[in-house]
Amino acid sequence: MERTLICETPKKVGKKIKINGFVHVVRAHGKIAFADITDRSGILQVVGEEDLADLRPQYAVEIEGVVQARPEKMINDKIKTGTVELTAEKVIVLAKSDEMPFDMGGETLNLELPTLLDFRTLTLRHQKIKEIFKVQAAVLAGFRNASEDIGCTEVTVPTISASATEGGAEVFSVDYYGHKAFMTQSPQLYKQMMVPSLERVYTIAKAYRAEPSVTTRHLSEATQMDCELGFVEFDELLDALEFVGGKTLKYVEEKCGKIFKDYGVSELKIPAKIPRLTMREAQVIIKDRTGVDHTKEKDLDPEDEKEICKWALEEKESDLVTVTHYPTKKRAFYTKPDPEDPEFSLSYDLLFRGLEILSGSQRVNDHEELVSAIKDRGMDPANFTMYLQTFKYGMPPEGGFSFGLERITMKLLNLGNVREASLFPRDMERVDFRFSQKEDLSSK
Amino acid sequence: MERTLICETPKKVGKKIKINGFVHVVRAHGKIAFADITDRSGILQVVGEEDLADLRPQYAVEIEGVVQARPEKMINDKIKTGTVELTAEKVIVLAKSDEMPFDMGGETLNLELPTLLDFRTLTLRHQKIKEIFKVQAAVLAGFRNASEDIGCTEVTVPTISASATEGGAEVFSVDYYGHKAFMTQSPQLYKQMMVPSLERVYTIAKAYRAEPSVTTRHLSEATQMDCELGFVEFDELLDALEFVGGKTLKYVEEKCGKIFKDYGVSELKIPAKIPRLTMREAQVIIKDRTGVDHTKEKDLDPEDEKEICKWALEEKESDLVTVTHYPTKKRAFYTKPDPEDPEFSLSYDLLFRGLEILSGSQRVNDHEELVSAIKDRGMDPANFTMYLQTFKYGMPPEGGFSFGLERITMKLLNLGNVREASLFPRDMERVDFRFSQKEDLSSK
Repeated sequence: MERTLICETPKKVGKKIKINGFVHVVRAHGKIAFADITDRSGILQVVGEEDLADLRPQYAVEIEGVVQARPEKMINDKIKTGTVELTAEKVIVLAKSDEMPFDMGGETLNLELPTLLDFRTLTLRHQKIKEIFKVQAAVLAGFRNASEDIGCTEVTVPTISASATEGGAEVFSVDYYGHKAFMTQSPQLYKQMMVPSLERVYTIAKAYRAEPSVTTRHLSEATQMDCELGFVEFDELLDALEFVGGKTLKYVEEKCGKIFKDYGVSELKIPAKIPRLTMREAQVIIKDRTGVDHTKEKDLDPEDEKEICKWALEEKESDLVTVTHYPTKKRAFYTKPDPEDPEFSLSYDLLFRGLEILSGSQRVNDHEELVSAIKDRGMDPANFTMYLQTFKYGMPPEGGFSFGLERITMKLLNLGNVREASLFPRDMERVDFRFSQKEDLSSK
Repeated sequence: MERTLICETPKKVGKKIKINGFVHVVRAHGKIAFADITDRSGILQVVGEEDLADLRPQYAVEIEGVVQARPEKMINDKIKTGTVELTAEKVIVLAKSDEMPFDMGGETLNLELPTLLDFRTLTLRHQKIKEIFKVQAAVLAGFRNASEDIGCTEVTVPTISASATEGGAEVFSVDYYGHKAFMTQSPQLYKQMMVPSLERVYTIAKAYRAEPSVTTRHLSEATQMDCELGFVEFDELLDALEFVGGKTLKYVEEKCGKIFKDYGVSELKIPAKIPRLTMREAQVIIKDRTGVDHTKEKDLDPEDEKEICKWALEEKESDLVTVTHYPTKKRAFYTKPDPEDPEFSLSYDLLFRGLEILSGSQRVNDHEELVSAIKDRGMDPANFTMYLQTFKYGMPPEGGFSFGLERITMKLLNLGNVREASLFPRDMERVDFRFSQKEDLSSK
């Protein structure tokens, strides 16, 4: 008999079917037993006798039975299959499970972060956790669709690099056939190198950052979604990033409406015209609203980002706000200074509900200017030979932007820690297990 | 004035427009000059005077002018804009270029591999090279579409691992905050760990292999496209891989028909029923056809793969053939032995026009059996603690498969070396530049 997906059962009342899935919970009432079975499409109540009562959570099972309509008063509005149940005729255990180390039967999984990660292969099975990664898949698809819409071609760029480029000491080094190589901190330099080839590109790439600190916002291995566009000026870049940012988020909302509901996420407010401010303008607004004077500061701090997002929501009915013109010295060497005031740069961040989710800039596209910018930061142009080659042979005005996949996922669902938005998060203390814990596990 | 993409010019006869692009070639005839300009959408002939004659290859330019219909006998059938040309009125150089180190004006770029890679940011601009990566983008999109069709959710799995899993010494080690970590050789273990969560997943991931040899088929950093499916048996897996393999290739053909033509690629032959053989059956066919007796060999060698593909094409009119049941000892520890003859395994390769492009198997899903398999290969189960956790808590019958992105691209376009199908290939001797060469470059 062919397998029926659980979501199809309401259409099969009276029919004999076979389902596959995992046992979520089992409730035995005397001779009768109920089991909730989940598969990738949903959850279904199965009614049976002894063999059903013997099932335990996380058993992988195959069940044959007949789909029955539930009496009116037994209908469960909360689930898609709430109008039916399956009367089990044959229950086959495909794989047993050890006893759960904690209760997985509740609507939410209230575990401390270390437990959530120590039992990652288990906790990822909880409905509410699975939803996080359904949202993440939608973010990826939404980003790709939007990037294709603006004419970008997908590319795959390398992550092993011969020098610790982009500056900063926070790189992981690799033993590369006896040579010292490095994991790239972002696809930045390679996506730029693609501009004179495919002109507009996007890439979904790993970014490795050896941040020597543990925060709720940073991962040592994260996923970036990047676009880079040739023959564009600053205003077109702003249009492009707002289009891609807005369209990505709207796609997720459209695909994951029910999940947003489960997580209590309010409807997205993305107006046709997303508010744009320079950093200095934002600081003046913040001062006017809060009395806190950050108008001489060189960056927006997290509190500033929250405040300017509150302003955007209250005054412009927007969950997004674009902030431009950060100080040139605060941004990477490839950021183009504003010709009208070179202390500030043609850079931008896109803020979403209090958090920066995207960052980028118009780039320096002149070879000599770029060499100077590299030297000005105390770096050696010899470490950028292949990158600089691009600029020797005609690089048009260009720019781009970059989203953090886990960060957007975290922010969309109001998660407390970016680790919750990574299937198997890597940080200073943990690769699957905490390093301190690994010794104990090995001896088991 | 807003930019017009070159592909739009045939619809704008008589109109004044602005284009952006790169100079491909310039031909001056006395006072009149012709320049071929390329952008991401195509190539266009521009006619002008002195300022056009001054342009050099790879200059990034902005040109304003009027679109003119070409006289009947001047129409160029080879290009999409062959019915028109642009009469330049204003030529702005956005970025100059150094003189080309080799001729980029021909229809093909006949360079030796080292030159092709030493000047990668230049050679990637050649039309024929760009086409390789258009095909690659289509392979990615086709694979994703097909994976979604069979119910897979996209996931992003880690590439930094705490132990050198999967066996084999060919791993890159990373200095991870003072701990020794490793770059994963494939997303294999993590995609399996996702089965009890999302049941069916796909991922596009980097695979790092420290192969201590330089061949035309291997890269140190490659891209894998992987699927993993829960609640499936061997026959369903074969159906799934043939569906995904066939549909991916057909998608590429549909999107890249013109490129296939440029590369002289013949029409794909993918029948509804792709021929399936066990390895032993394949060896018998090869012996019958060629007289070469490999029926006792433990694997198909490259010549065998070519021969069995010839058979599939001649006898079954198929460019694809699935070969199953490779010896258990030749496959990775997680491969399920055939219960009816455990010396052979429930494994498969998909061969395309003489080359294996996909590999996979039904997996061992029983915890104890898996622990034994790990020990049998001389590995330590303690290095697989998180992976094994998955199997302690109910792992259904499952399996999957994996494609090599660069390898498929190479094979589709009949490239001689897999490096040609990687934007910036990494191998034992090269990360952008050859290691031996880097010293010279640094001193420049």
